[in-house]
Amino acid sequence: MNSRAAGLYERHRPLLQRAAEACATREYFSPFPEAPDRYPDSATAFERGRADFAAQLGRAFELDQPGEIGRLGDEVSPYTGERLGIDYPQADVDVLFDAARSAMPAWVDAGGQARVGVCLEIVHALFAELPLLVPAVMHTAGQSNAMSYAGSGTNALDRGIEAIAYAHQAMDAVAGQALWERRFGAATIRLRKRFRLVPRGVAVCFTCATFPTWNAFPAMFASLATGNAVIVKPHPTGILPMALAVRVARRVLADSGFDPNLVTLAVDSPEAPLGMRLVKHPGTAIVDFTGSARFGAWVEQNAHPALSYTETSGVNTVVLESMDDLEPVARSLATTMSLFSAQMCTSPQNIYLPRSGVTVGDRRVGVDEVCDALVAAFRAVVAERKRAASILAAVQSPATLELVGRLRGAGVRRGAVLLDSAPYSHPDFPAARTATPLLLRVAPDARDLYCEERFGPIGFVIETDDARTALEAATADVRAAGGITAFVYSQRDEFLAAAEAAYAVAGAQLTCNLTGPMPLNFAASYSDYHVTGLNAAGNATLTDASFVAARFRIAQSRRPVA
Amino acid sequence: MNSRAAGLYERHRPLLQRAAEACATREYFSPFPEAPDRYPDSATAFERGRADFAAQLGRAFELDQPGEIGRLGDEVSPYTGERLGIDYPQADVDVLFDAARSAMPAWVDAGGQARVGVCLEIVHALFAELPLLVPAVMHTAGQSNAMSYAGSGTNALDRGIEAIAYAHQAMDAVAGQALWERRFGAATIRLRKRFRLVPRGVAVCFTCATFPTWNAFPAMFASLATGNAVIVKPHPTGILPMALAVRVARRVLADSGFDPNLVTLAVDSPEAPLGMRLVKHPGTAIVDFTGSARFGAWVEQNAHPALSYTETSGVNTVVLESMDDLEPVARSLATTMSLFSAQMCTSPQNIYLPRSGVTVGDRRVGVDEVCDALVAAFRAVVAERKRAASILAAVQSPATLELVGRLRGAGVRRGAVLLDSAPYSHPDFPAARTATPLLLRVAPDARDLYCEERFGPIGFVIETDDARTALEAATADVRAAGGITAFVYSQRDEFLAAAEAAYAVAGAQLTCNLTGPMPLNFAASYSDYHVTGLNAAGNATLTDASFVAARFRIAQSRRPVA
Repeated sequence: MNSRAAGLYERHRPLLQRAAEACATREYFSPFPEAPDRYPDSATAFERGRADFAAQLGRAFELDQPGEIGRLGDEVSPYTGERLGIDYPQADVDVLFDAARSAMPAWVDAGGQARVGVCLEIVHALFAELPLLVPAVMHTAGQSNAMSYAGSGTNALDRGIEAIAYAHQAMDAVAGQALWERRFGAATIRLRKRFRLVPRGVAVCFTCATFPTWNAFPAMFASLATGNAVIVKPHPTGILPMALAVRVARRVLADSGFDPNLVTLAVDSPEAPLGMRLVKHPGTAIVDFTGSARFGAWVEQNAHPALSYTETSGVNTVVLESMDDLEPVARSLATTMSLFSAQMCTSPQNIYLPRSGVTVGDRRVGVDEVCDALVAAFRAVVAERKRAASILAAVQSPATLELVGRLRGAGVRRGAVLLDSAPYSHPDFPAARTATPLLLRVAPDARDLYCEERFGPIGFVIETDDARTALEAATADVRAAGGITAFVYSQRDEFLAAAEAAYAVAGAQLTCNLTGPMPLNFAASYSDYHVTGLNAAGNATLTDASFVAARFRIAQSRRPVA
Repeated sequence: MNSRAAGLYERHRPLLQRAAEACATREYFSPFPEAPDRYPDSATAFERGRADFAAQLGRAFELDQPGEIGRLGDEVSPYTGERLGIDYPQADVDVLFDAARSAMPAWVDAGGQARVGVCLEIVHALFAELPLLVPAVMHTAGQSNAMSYAGSGTNALDRGIEAIAYAHQAMDAVAGQALWERRFGAATIRLRKRFRLVPRGVAVCFTCATFPTWNAFPAMFASLATGNAVIVKPHPTGILPMALAVRVARRVLADSGFDPNLVTLAVDSPEAPLGMRLVKHPGTAIVDFTGSARFGAWVEQNAHPALSYTETSGVNTVVLESMDDLEPVARSLATTMSLFSAQMCTSPQNIYLPRSGVTVGDRRVGVDEVCDALVAAFRAVVAERKRAASILAAVQSPATLELVGRLRGAGVRRGAVLLDSAPYSHPDFPAARTATPLLLRVAPDARDLYCEERFGPIGFVIETDDARTALEAATADVRAAGGITAFVYSQRDEFLAAAEAAYAVAGAQLTCNLTGPMPLNFAASYSDYHVTGLNAAGNATLTDASFVAARFRIAQSRRPVA
């Protein structure tokens, strides 16, 4: 191990240990301040970040990586509607793979501890980059300032540390050497065995438009820590956050005495996408994919011989059976279904409830009244522009607005529009692309409408025969279309137990009876397992042992000793 | 956990702990006697086993499992040339899947410890079955009595225990529950989280003709311990060992209070193979495959959405550079290349050496002299019939003899036949299908002959420009055709270091400078990693964390607590 890398491992060891403990106990942990105002030198730092972002607009992004054959980039801010005007190096893909492979031997030889040390140093450098990363996420993904800081910043870095901790454990569990001794007939055979960790090769990490870093950081660090190189392929409408992350990683790698080509950026355009070519490239050993269910399924089927880890989408379901009080439930659902205009793979979409209504305290509340409460709660979210902006933020893609329009039309024909979607006026960005949620009430037979992820601020209220049927329908839809999160409200232990059992089989992570200020779909690093791998919403989990264990292999050598 | 299963876990816990320690230290361990003569009540037990085997010949195999639609079975003993005359239930595959799925919920609910306890009880029951399993392996695979006991018996059971230990660790690392607490704004959110392990579903375990149990036991136990059900699909010419194993597993499962349909048998025939149908069956969640590289590659490409774990074949290479003494090296190579007539996926096949010869002590020994030493050593193996029988045993398939014939012809045309293959006369079984090794000397450009697994007693001596070229050629062939084991003889540290580095990248497990009574290709449970997954010889390792970690997933449920 070079001395600089050894020093990094020692420096970050307490954090590593603390993170590993949290992964084991699943209790709360984060080394980072939860809110931007507690960031070091907060005011100055974020002012500088905004200035740096403004200075980047309209300019070439400086990224000194090999194989540049042109420049690409056509990002548009969901907040201003204006082009960012930033161009990025378009790379000769073969050159990136060659450079990555050339960089690997020294990275492998450095050993797991050195790599873990460098990865944790990259995490810290990314934390220092947050003031610039936050506006970069805002003006590509459309997230609010607070979400850009927490969801795409500290929480994403926490998921990265978590993956590093798992990778460290998996590597640490493999003995470096052994003395093996056994009798064969009259003789004793003594063998000195050495075991070395061999990375798979070059990993390709696809990131999505609305939430690039949260999935990318754990994937990148899981691959890097285990000795692989990483080529990052960002969504063409959300390059900047990943370009910044790649640049930071390259700088830390170089500063630590390693070849920066262990991490490179492969940008493409909607007109000439690189995705399939990267997945099928003979140099690709690992694919991490976040994005559409359709391309995710293609990746899973076509990545071989590369390993694939996918996190895509599905229908996230809510079942209402009984509750103490309706209003807090409606408020939590409305807030969570409005959060970032439901452009999260964890956003609830379908609310199933019995046709006869739900039990609230000791009275029966009909479906109409439940719908009224939901509508009132959704309206309250957008009643005040500043609050609306902090929750809904902006809509990343014009396609989402088109989808809202199509679903509105279908809702009129096939059911009832409980709440129509409309732009809201963002207090800071008058040109922001915005949309308040569309809420439709449909019959169970409108499955072609709701049994599919409808990405964006679109919700469905689905009436079923009874509560048991609601649960059956919801979990059947998860099994059919995939699903990451699920939510049940019931005061009956028996119903909750049935829901836990049914959702465990369907493979959606369940939250029961939660109300209050925490977004229902909040996934805590070190504690909440994200995606089970049991349904179509992805095959990989952030973060479990199987997310890291196959990214390296074990080669052995044995020799007789006296 | 039911009390019987709980008792089994407690009873076997010391063994589990000892096995886990061995997996960590990679030191020697086995709870079983290494040789049949130290088996409990050895003489009586094996006499009874032979009698039981004789009584089974010509009769229906009793296996009380659902979905029987006919009887199948056409095994022929490689030792007697006679049909075993045993028929097995032919199953309606859909019924097996339905039965397996119905059996799973109670198995899942029992929890990891109960399952581990039952699995270890099955291991012990299989050990008790060895007296019958040994002749069953002999008269289907053609192994010697000693190998049937050790390689297919105790060592295979050790690999099974190893897989159980890894599965136990992987499950044990997941917290059952947690109390998670964090502030959101002014409020504190407290969530009680519960995590449950969810198996993938039904695993299909394909076993090969020559060495069924050694790969099957770890695969079956890895799946079972993590909550899955297993359908065993044996090679149609080697059903009996797996039918016995399935019957034992079913009995122990039933005795422990579980549904025996967690383990069933799906037999087929060469005329109507079931393989592709089982891999593509919608109920298949996991495929473990041991067998040909060709079908293994098909499995890897087509199993999705099922996970696949493959162990196939490749070219196992030997590089000769320098040695203290030639004769012990020649003897070890000849013995190992003769062992079970090289019908093992770990048997060496290709010997690469410099055209200028090798250094022996302080003199240069030419290729001719090395070949002479090898030929003499091969001849010594078969010089005495009893010893020949104990080493070469019998040839499982007539196709192997045809292959030997074809390669002999090619050798005459393309190089030199150093040693011709011929039947040898087995002292106990005059009708045994036998073949002494064929050893060919070829030029490097005969790659179409040697750069492919030639299953059976076929070896190649390949002359290259120099020692460095020998190593390069050998590792290039492993990268191209796959390879599991590799062997290097060199007295130069630098050359050994280069070999270790090159084979680690190529992904073959290396043995350096080994001579003496241990077969060079002996793979020790708990210590030697079998198959790296880095080349075409398979994607799975016996046993590492990645062999078990993805066989179950984690579902969570969280609820607020006061």
